[in-house]
Amino acid sequence: MVAPRPLGPDATIGILGGGQLGRMLALAAARLGFKCHVLCPDPQSCAFDVVRRVTEADYTDKEALDRFANDVDVVTYEFENVPAETATFLSARKPVLPDPKILATTQDRLTEKNFVTALGIATAPYAAVDDRASLDAALAALGRPAVLKTRRFGYDGKGQVTIRANDDPGVAWDEIGQQPAILEAFVPFEREVSVVVARGLDGTVQTFDLCENEHRDHILKVTRVPAAVPAEIAAAARDIAGRIADAFGYVGVMAVEMFWVADGGAGPGGRVLVNEIAPRVHNSGHWTQDGCTVSQFEQHIRAVAGWPLAVPVRHGRAEMINLIGAEVDEHKAWLAVPGASVHLYGKPIVRPGRKMGHVNRVFVD
Amino acid sequence: MVAPRPLGPDATIGILGGGQLGRMLALAAARLGFKCHVLCPDPQSCAFDVVRRVTEADYTDKEALDRFANDVDVVTYEFENVPAETATFLSARKPVLPDPKILATTQDRLTEKNFVTALGIATAPYAAVDDRASLDAALAALGRPAVLKTRRFGYDGKGQVTIRANDDPGVAWDEIGQQPAILEAFVPFEREVSVVVARGLDGTVQTFDLCENEHRDHILKVTRVPAAVPAEIAAAARDIAGRIADAFGYVGVMAVEMFWVADGGAGPGGRVLVNEIAPRVHNSGHWTQDGCTVSQFEQHIRAVAGWPLAVPVRHGRAEMINLIGAEVDEHKAWLAVPGASVHLYGKPIVRPGRKMGHVNRVFVD
Repeated sequence: MVAPRPLGPDATIGILGGGQLGRMLALAAARLGFKCHVLCPDPQSCAFDVVRRVTEADYTDKEALDRFANDVDVVTYEFENVPAETATFLSARKPVLPDPKILATTQDRLTEKNFVTALGIATAPYAAVDDRASLDAALAALGRPAVLKTRRFGYDGKGQVTIRANDDPGVAWDEIGQQPAILEAFVPFEREVSVVVARGLDGTVQTFDLCENEHRDHILKVTRVPAAVPAEIAAAARDIAGRIADAFGYVGVMAVEMFWVADGGAGPGGRVLVNEIAPRVHNSGHWTQDGCTVSQFEQHIRAVAGWPLAVPVRHGRAEMINLIGAEVDEHKAWLAVPGASVHLYGKPIVRPGRKMGHVNRVFVD
Repeated sequence: MVAPRPLGPDATIGILGGGQLGRMLALAAARLGFKCHVLCPDPQSCAFDVVRRVTEADYTDKEALDRFANDVDVVTYEFENVPAETATFLSARKPVLPDPKILATTQDRLTEKNFVTALGIATAPYAAVDDRASLDAALAALGRPAVLKTRRFGYDGKGQVTIRANDDPGVAWDEIGQQPAILEAFVPFEREVSVVVARGLDGTVQTFDLCENEHRDHILKVTRVPAAVPAEIAAAARDIAGRIADAFGYVGVMAVEMFWVADGGAGPGGRVLVNEIAPRVHNSGHWTQDGCTVSQFEQHIRAVAGWPLAVPVRHGRAEMINLIGAEVDEHKAWLAVPGASVHLYGKPIVRPGRKMGHVNRVFVD
């Protein structure tokens, strides 16, 4: 890979992916004086509207990738499923951050869990599933209920099915398309929490405060910060996120989703289990735009630009509420709420389950 | 004028002027889901980099203005010297906010001061100067030192000269080019303060907290908020700004620069004299980007979009430091300061006196 070095303020940052995360990265980059160039196959990419240069092309279009690489000083991405060949092609031309090698780990649930386990960090019990026989063995070992998940390309609850006491494992196996999979034991957790962590080019780590997440239909609906967990749990969670970032040699912002289990398994406060790593800015970090002295987006841009990270200081108790599908109309009511900041992504078409915007609420009294 | 009405989130906002104020307006508009189209004659306009559509054309290019008007839903501007013919041409096609009729008042120092005086609001003593004879009469009436200012097109100390005890008034008259002018009595003020005020399409007024300003070489260097003035002075200043906005029927954000005079002239805390009105977002309001629950830029966009204004709540004590000319390099040191947010405008060429960026510092301890 072309070695990264600190950018001048007149540099251009290339962003793969034109959704709301790319859009918000570009807006943060603009605050710091950077130009951005977004590459995305979707002509209606909402990130296209806030940058000067765009490339509408497939991620495997070598000619377009070559022009894109020539125009930018560093490449980053808003999504974790960047094709390996794209990353390889680009990193021969310009620095790509975070290092796409990390994607090979996080794109596969089994590899990711093995990586975390090797660091001595706890996850829910899990087992590899390659066929019907190994599914039955895994169910016998882990018990029911358990969750069967495809190893690759799962997000927002896609590619996963819960196997309960009377369910036929064969149906679940068919349902996920008989793909290489992982079975995860069901964990009776108290809270879903996440840590958004940044690691700079110089190896400095800065974590945002632990937040708790509430999902609806497998899509994040509300993030609250600080998470209502014991202080030692919050500290342990932040420490885990920093250790993972260090182990990856990560440069940029990533999120580690975890479960807080209050079963006393590792002290009076319970313990934290790593559920999933997102090697990118993350929906559970959106509150930082208005609730903190630095946003996750600026922190990511600082990192990939080789600039020093900021020390994040939270302004107060905060919440992030996603506006999903037709809920986007709720922004009108939120405009009048003191301490609420409305963010809309400018997506032209409303679809069920589509993230259209969010509200950051800082409790100001 | 085409009557304004509330915009849908998919609307396009037209911005006249491509400098840092236009850039930061566009970034704030993007947060709310709006698209922006910037028109500016300068091909290196820094606002061009953060919007999808740009028009590089002179403000009097009717053909370009017509295309621009056809593409946008509302027009606003980042500078107060929009030519009257441009405003007239555009407002026949689309709503232009704030109403350009206000510019006729604020583009002329004498008309502006007469307007303020007619509202029963105090200014420094002043007199019209149309020739040498009226200059001498004004000096006799107001005493020395006094400041001679051209009535039109003055900013950042340009077009003004101080006449001290032994100065020849004829030299000052020549220096400002023998243009229609105004003589202002010198006021021994304690602080220069300003109020950034927003007024919505529905007539709602929201003022940001009073800030104090420190100039260097006639250019704003530091803004501090809250201003170190008695509470009744801060309240009076905010009230004055609101009354001026109401009197204009203003829609958008404007700034009122004032002097705090502690001479006991109107109560124990002294009094406030209006110095100047800026009918646009203002450098002394930049701190709101990081020091407040809503920025002046978003407040302006909400107003011109016909959306409700936000209730601004300050996060804490804050400062804004302008990075002027070569000072832009100081951004590197600021990146490491907790609570400091660096803003760079992406201007390609550094020039003495040119505003290159600013730092917002929120005191977080």
